[in-house]
Amino acid sequence: MTEAYELTATEGLKAVEAGNLTAEAWTASCFERIEDREEAVLAWEYLDRDSALAHARAIDRSGNNGPAKGVPFGAKDIIDTHDMPTGYGSPIHAGNQPSRDAGCVAITRSAGAVLLGKTVTTEFGHRFPGKTRNPFNPAFTPGGSSSGSAAGVGDKMVPMALGTQTGGSVIRPATYCGAVGYKPTFQDINRNGVLPNSPSFDTVGIITRSIEDLALFRSVVLEEAMQAVNPPDISTVKIGYYRTPNWHDADKATHDHLENSATTLAAAGATVIDMSLPGEEDYRALHTTIAGWEFARTVAWERLNRLNQLSDDLKDGRMQNGVETSYEQYRKGTMRLELLKQQVDDALSAVDAVLCPAAPGEALEGHTRTGSAIFNSLWTMLGTPAVTVPLYTGPNGLPMGVQLVAGRMKDRRLFDVAEAVYGVLKQG
Amino acid sequence: MTEAYELTATEGLKAVEAGNLTAEAWTASCFERIEDREEAVLAWEYLDRDSALAHARAIDRSGNNGPAKGVPFGAKDIIDTHDMPTGYGSPIHAGNQPSRDAGCVAITRSAGAVLLGKTVTTEFGHRFPGKTRNPFNPAFTPGGSSSGSAAGVGDKMVPMALGTQTGGSVIRPATYCGAVGYKPTFQDINRNGVLPNSPSFDTVGIITRSIEDLALFRSVVLEEAMQAVNPPDISTVKIGYYRTPNWHDADKATHDHLENSATTLAAAGATVIDMSLPGEEDYRALHTTIAGWEFARTVAWERLNRLNQLSDDLKDGRMQNGVETSYEQYRKGTMRLELLKQQVDDALSAVDAVLCPAAPGEALEGHTRTGSAIFNSLWTMLGTPAVTVPLYTGPNGLPMGVQLVAGRMKDRRLFDVAEAVYGVLKQG
Repeated sequence: MTEAYELTATEGLKAVEAGNLTAEAWTASCFERIEDREEAVLAWEYLDRDSALAHARAIDRSGNNGPAKGVPFGAKDIIDTHDMPTGYGSPIHAGNQPSRDAGCVAITRSAGAVLLGKTVTTEFGHRFPGKTRNPFNPAFTPGGSSSGSAAGVGDKMVPMALGTQTGGSVIRPATYCGAVGYKPTFQDINRNGVLPNSPSFDTVGIITRSIEDLALFRSVVLEEAMQAVNPPDISTVKIGYYRTPNWHDADKATHDHLENSATTLAAAGATVIDMSLPGEEDYRALHTTIAGWEFARTVAWERLNRLNQLSDDLKDGRMQNGVETSYEQYRKGTMRLELLKQQVDDALSAVDAVLCPAAPGEALEGHTRTGSAIFNSLWTMLGTPAVTVPLYTGPNGLPMGVQLVAGRMKDRRLFDVAEAVYGVLKQG
Repeated sequence: MTEAYELTATEGLKAVEAGNLTAEAWTASCFERIEDREEAVLAWEYLDRDSALAHARAIDRSGNNGPAKGVPFGAKDIIDTHDMPTGYGSPIHAGNQPSRDAGCVAITRSAGAVLLGKTVTTEFGHRFPGKTRNPFNPAFTPGGSSSGSAAGVGDKMVPMALGTQTGGSVIRPATYCGAVGYKPTFQDINRNGVLPNSPSFDTVGIITRSIEDLALFRSVVLEEAMQAVNPPDISTVKIGYYRTPNWHDADKATHDHLENSATTLAAAGATVIDMSLPGEEDYRALHTTIAGWEFARTVAWERLNRLNQLSDDLKDGRMQNGVETSYEQYRKGTMRLELLKQQVDDALSAVDAVLCPAAPGEALEGHTRTGSAIFNSLWTMLGTPAVTVPLYTGPNGLPMGVQLVAGRMKDRRLFDVAEAVYGVLKQG
């Protein structure tokens, strides 16, 4: 028998609608899974079972017929909640209690979803890892910075979790943990109540176990009517195969899976062309300059007052880059980027989606690093939507995916195309 | 004898450097002024004299030689402070205590400035007024939303205060209260720890009593070396006289002052040309669409959970616009704006500064409205820097200014030009 915790959000919603599942039972099932698995995975920074069950019962009683009625979810611990502490992954802010929910949480709750708790984040959503383990093998990293959101969803503790991405903080942990990850077009999901890292890039993302669920929660958070995912026939789909300037940073398994994916899609009838993008040789340096300047200022209070409570990873990396970057350099970067975004949108309009690595390989062994964002940070910077779906098993037995990307504001179409593309690749 | 509270920041800093003034004495003098005047002006939401004096003494003792050593300042009560409550101008959040200072506050304090307290804001930095009165006549509005920041500086309670502008929330209250106001280029001053309203427009601004002080605090907040204000000879300055599509919304006094200003500048040797801007007929609607969509989401938690504690001004205005705006409409707007910003930068590169109204007239009588942002919201939307300096007295005996604007990232040059232009207009 399928347990409720194993259901995707869409599957569970159907059961709720049919009267075969209650919000309370769904929430209780997720907590059973969490009780079984949390000791190994450590996905949660804060959990409140009694309060979540009370919310679920209230939803069952209320006649709330919101589009996410009863769906249990989690939120990364840099996203504010009025009734749960929000500690930003830093001992400096342990126990911090905001007075309001971030908009993305408030809207999701209002649609009938039940917040189970706060998921582990790296320090300030940057690099220094939290306690979370990879659910497929606890000796490996779950990725970051949305570590607990990806591990919790990948491990079926919860069907959906909110994360954020400034470099690769949604797509990378999702692919490492066998979850479906989505980074929307920049500024689609309002960031109020979300701790800033680099405001030109910070993006609220969604982690689920199906493309259908991404479409559901995108519509929920935007407060727009749900449109069913409608995959086109693969023979009508045009794919831009993009190895990126950092192809050499990916391992052999990634190379092989990407090459196989391109071949499989072409064999299934898709048009597959090789791509390059305007200005691609500058993306890495541009992300470093802009993210650095901004991050040094978003952590200004801690930098100037609590320096000895910050990790070396944080101090010596992006923050130090930022302190060494001048306003002139920063603004030269942002002006360049403003034009590049438009040029890349134009280039991407020639295809339905770009196919590229989601990460350089499987999750890394150990817990001192969360992995490289090199295949993600360009898309975060360019503001384009990106998704990843688990497709393969790597040499260490861990999940791997491939990433699909489209031009800005093509998110809904990307879901349709992704459903078709991943459908072919899962069979292939 | 000049009291310390009457000094601009730059004047006070010189006295501190010369050993003629201490941070403690400067802070104490400001508190004396506040004690005299606060009952009439009501600029402050929160004040902590003992704590501010202790900070000032610590700075005197410490050998802190920061560029703002000892300068007393205030911060709008939507800007987080770790040691003072931050209530967002709403009874919903009264007593809310953030765990960190906003970056702009942390950096300013670190440069040696002394935070006296939190200044009154309208509800969530939108329209519904707080308690503050116009310091020149308590029967009149101080303007908003940075009401207390403008009134406090205009009334010489404090030489500098931080505010924010999404429509006209820095420039309008500054001109109403006889202060010098500055809205920087969009995203120059990091907004972490500042309550969002409409993230595409929200801008941290600075209110002082001189252009020199604007340049000082701009360099402080950006952590860049101070460059002295260096006004060009007026005969080399090219001014674009821009009546805007909303000229008819300004009153006769404003028309007269603007026309006189243009004539005076030309007579002094400046080149003055009439200007129009690309897409100007659409600015108003574009601001409404984008600000509405975003605001409805930044106040999502309150909209969905505390609706009866929100003012009608808030619910029926921008929030309702936002609920009625679709994602497609919003994104059509943001894409249009992205191109318009570049076109307007190009247009503005033909002049050293644009001359236009700072407000439709003097401050309004009464305390139910804070006035119109129609001459400000276009610049906030276009991301361009803007300043205002008090120059005239209106028919009701209240201060009036004119606004100067330049292309994005031309802030420093705008200060130099403004010093020259206002120098001529003050004599003229």
